[in-house]
Amino acid sequence: MQIESKALNWDGETLTLIDQRLLPHTEELVSVRSVEECHAAIKDMVVRGAPLIGFGAIFGLAIHAANCLGDYEKFEKGAEYLKTARPTAVNLEYEVERCLALAKRESGSGLAATLAEFGISEFNKLGRDNLQMAELALADVAKRVHKDRYRFMTLCNTGFLACGPLGTALGVISTAHKKGIVEHVYASETRPYMQGSRLTAYELSSEDISHEIVVEGAASFVLGSGRVDAIFVGADRIAANGDTANKVGTSSLAIIAKYYGIPFYVIAPTSSFDVSIKSGAEIEIEMRPEEEILKFKGIPVAPFKSKALNPSFDVTDHKNITGIVCEKGLIDPSIPGELERVVRS
Amino acid sequence: MQIESKALNWDGETLTLIDQRLLPHTEELVSVRSVEECHAAIKDMVVRGAPLIGFGAIFGLAIHAANCLGDYEKFEKGAEYLKTARPTAVNLEYEVERCLALAKRESGSGLAATLAEFGISEFNKLGRDNLQMAELALADVAKRVHKDRYRFMTLCNTGFLACGPLGTALGVISTAHKKGIVEHVYASETRPYMQGSRLTAYELSSEDISHEIVVEGAASFVLGSGRVDAIFVGADRIAANGDTANKVGTSSLAIIAKYYGIPFYVIAPTSSFDVSIKSGAEIEIEMRPEEEILKFKGIPVAPFKSKALNPSFDVTDHKNITGIVCEKGLIDPSIPGELERVVRS
Repeated sequence: MQIESKALNWDGETLTLIDQRLLPHTEELVSVRSVEECHAAIKDMVVRGAPLIGFGAIFGLAIHAANCLGDYEKFEKGAEYLKTARPTAVNLEYEVERCLALAKRESGSGLAATLAEFGISEFNKLGRDNLQMAELALADVAKRVHKDRYRFMTLCNTGFLACGPLGTALGVISTAHKKGIVEHVYASETRPYMQGSRLTAYELSSEDISHEIVVEGAASFVLGSGRVDAIFVGADRIAANGDTANKVGTSSLAIIAKYYGIPFYVIAPTSSFDVSIKSGAEIEIEMRPEEEILKFKGIPVAPFKSKALNPSFDVTDHKNITGIVCEKGLIDPSIPGELERVVRS
Repeated sequence: MQIESKALNWDGETLTLIDQRLLPHTEELVSVRSVEECHAAIKDMVVRGAPLIGFGAIFGLAIHAANCLGDYEKFEKGAEYLKTARPTAVNLEYEVERCLALAKRESGSGLAATLAEFGISEFNKLGRDNLQMAELALADVAKRVHKDRYRFMTLCNTGFLACGPLGTALGVISTAHKKGIVEHVYASETRPYMQGSRLTAYELSSEDISHEIVVEGAASFVLGSGRVDAIFVGADRIAANGDTANKVGTSSLAIIAKYYGIPFYVIAPTSSFDVSIKSGAEIEIEMRPEEEILKFKGIPVAPFKSKALNPSFDVTDHKNITGIVCEKGLIDPSIPGELERVVRS
């Protein structure tokens, strides 16, 4: 049982990860052979993206279980240590807890195999879900835009580098490309952290998908000049009414897309849905360090006295979203209660 | 007769310019004592911004006239040479032609003084016009938003570094600050060339105006969270119907401002108006080198195989502009024919 993907490999004993800090110019694999090495890979951001961090943790704990030779206390200590690699990554803690629950049921010598099987099963399930979402999104695009080949736009990074398997928004584009129906892709560079230029462009390049990077400010020019048939973005958190928190710039792009009448899709698994919050107004926006804007690779850009406001996310009003696509179906956010109905189906 | 400003000084004999290539971190003055030095300052972008380049050329030719000691042929040769410093700067050619016309009337020893007086007179006239525009814009803001102190937003650089005197959009903010009615300013960083972070933030810092730099993508977050009372931008070219070509990102910002109901003003002298074109559809958008997006200070950001689309301008639909302010008055672009009426008044 093994996993071979572009971001993460598991050969049954060793975990290898592409070092995302060196992308897009250097493709270097990092081997993980202990929980300490797994901790370092997550902490130092060799691996990033909530789902991929989760898979890294599961396979890291499978290795750790093999190293512990059935010593449950040692296993638990390592697992708790792994949680501290990125304290704000809710997903990391969640996956470690799931592994600890499995370890409580089977603390013997079979634990390593159990965890590895769990990781492989989850990875494959997410891959199937990602593909299902891609098919649903493309079917809806085909209903709205009648063309043989499409021009798409996306922002931030939501492909295999973030997810492990296919990915969400970028997974739709990758799937469409495999069907031969992608003419061109516009990747918004995604200031300040440049996930579009660095990571999405890397994924598009690696799959030989025709693409151009654009600055966020060019959205009106790009959409207004009729260059784009549909836009796909991911989501960090979706409220019960469909309001969506995602990388800063998403809401701006959605408003401009609505203005020009271009279909705008949010692609996200139901695990991103939080029906306990009614609307986006309840979502608190995390502010990131202003240095991300004031400096570039350590080089100061702005005057030393200047400050910056660096919201990491924004909230896209559900009225500006054409469709929210999860593994259970496509949600029209203009229909009240539709999201909860689909999530609970 | 002399000029003392933050971007350009003229003491009657020598022209000194702030070296804009070194901003915002180093304030270094460059002296211009010949037409060759003036050519180099314009070509190497020590000086930038259409009006400021124009003033640099006029004073450069005053120095050149003094150096020519009444030799008209030598003067003309130098003037023609100066035009080649930035062949695409229409404004440079225009001002050199105006100086040549003056030289034809007065080719004797008085030419240097005539040109210097012409430069001073034009500089002071633009300063008065800039102030007039600022007063008109602020009067309109006061009618729409009833507050003691305002939060403004701007994009690109339109202040003294671009114009010489006060400036256009940033001139409004500077004038408001002198009246004590500015609470805070959001400067959009203006990818890819960072005029907002580098130059506007420098001007705001130098005047001790409270400000934060934001990425273009954050526009919806900033405007949607009620942080901004009014937005001011400049213009490169305005069509008869009010459609405005300006730095890429302007149209995106205007659409988002309209969505949130925030007043959006274009501040531009009538010299930017081109009533020979009916609408923005007739304005061709210049594409800039993709390296501006793919690299940062020479450091590659994106994959080597990736391409970028780098429109230097976009066209803002007049329907998304609250008011166009020129030295002759405030134009409501929703009234057909209003722009031509004001321009011809």
